[in-house]
Amino acid sequence: MPTAFQDYYPDKFSHCYGCGKSHPQGHHLKSYWDGQDTIARFTVPPDFSGGVPDHAYGGMVASLLDCHGTASAAAFAYRAAAREMDDAGEFMRFVTASLKVDFLRPTPIGVELVIKGHLHGIEGRKVHVSLSLSEGDQVCARGQMLAVQLRS
Amino acid sequence: MPTAFQDYYPDKFSHCYGCGKSHPQGHHLKSYWDGQDTIARFTVPPDFSGGVPDHAYGGMVASLLDCHGTASAAAFAYRAAAREMDDAGEFMRFVTASLKVDFLRPTPIGVELVIKGHLHGIEGRKVHVSLSLSEGDQVCARGQMLAVQLRS
Repeated sequence: MPTAFQDYYPDKFSHCYGCGKSHPQGHHLKSYWDGQDTIARFTVPPDFSGGVPDHAYGGMVASLLDCHGTASAAAFAYRAAAREMDDAGEFMRFVTASLKVDFLRPTPIGVELVIKGHLHGIEGRKVHVSLSLSEGDQVCARGQMLAVQLRS
Repeated sequence: MPTAFQDYYPDKFSHCYGCGKSHPQGHHLKSYWDGQDTIARFTVPPDFSGGVPDHAYGGMVASLLDCHGTASAAAFAYRAAAREMDDAGEFMRFVTASLKVDFLRPTPIGVELVIKGHLHGIEGRKVHVSLSLSEGDQVCARGQMLAVQLRS
């Protein structure tokens, strides 16, 4: 099994409730390469229901896209720089500048969801990522992210 | 104390992790009128950290804007229809069609945040709401939501 992008984050950046390896609870989302794109898989636990108990609440959907998007932005930036995420250089950690989520249909709870990321472009410290969240062949949500590399 | 918009939701729509009165844990966000606009107050618990422990994770910020936005959309729709949220008619429950979040600065944990909603327009079952999330006079995030009334 390859190492997830989030598992390369230095300890000081690894406390995210959504995806941080150092968070004691949290969702621990893990993102990987999927050819030229990126992928994460996640099953929403029953606690995180929306108004209707069978479906995830909007914040959960946004969280999955957000954490996968910033991890994907880092991975795309490393690839563009021909660097490895565990090299000796300063770590490139990205945060979200903006995220637009289109909710296309309710996101189910208790089944595996697939979150994908696709690079749209890199301009200096900014990375544009398009995202989707699907159950099987049904796309439940799409996202457009602008991520920005943190300054050290 | 007035009744929060979310506390008018019928039981079948009140299980949201972010704002549902029937959720056993959850954030229980409560939204109210603030003149012609809407307001909610929330202090992020330490568990919901982002990559850096002092700040909220992106999904938390999106969740607060999302839950306040759909509740505000319902309130604006009731006001436009000259209805009360506890009248005998069918309840107008809104869900998010799209939400764009601009993250302007890190959102702190452990201090009271103020989330505001402003009506931008109503077209049939669609309500456009602009949102902000602030700590004191510092705006941490802004949101633009398109909410849609669920069909019965």
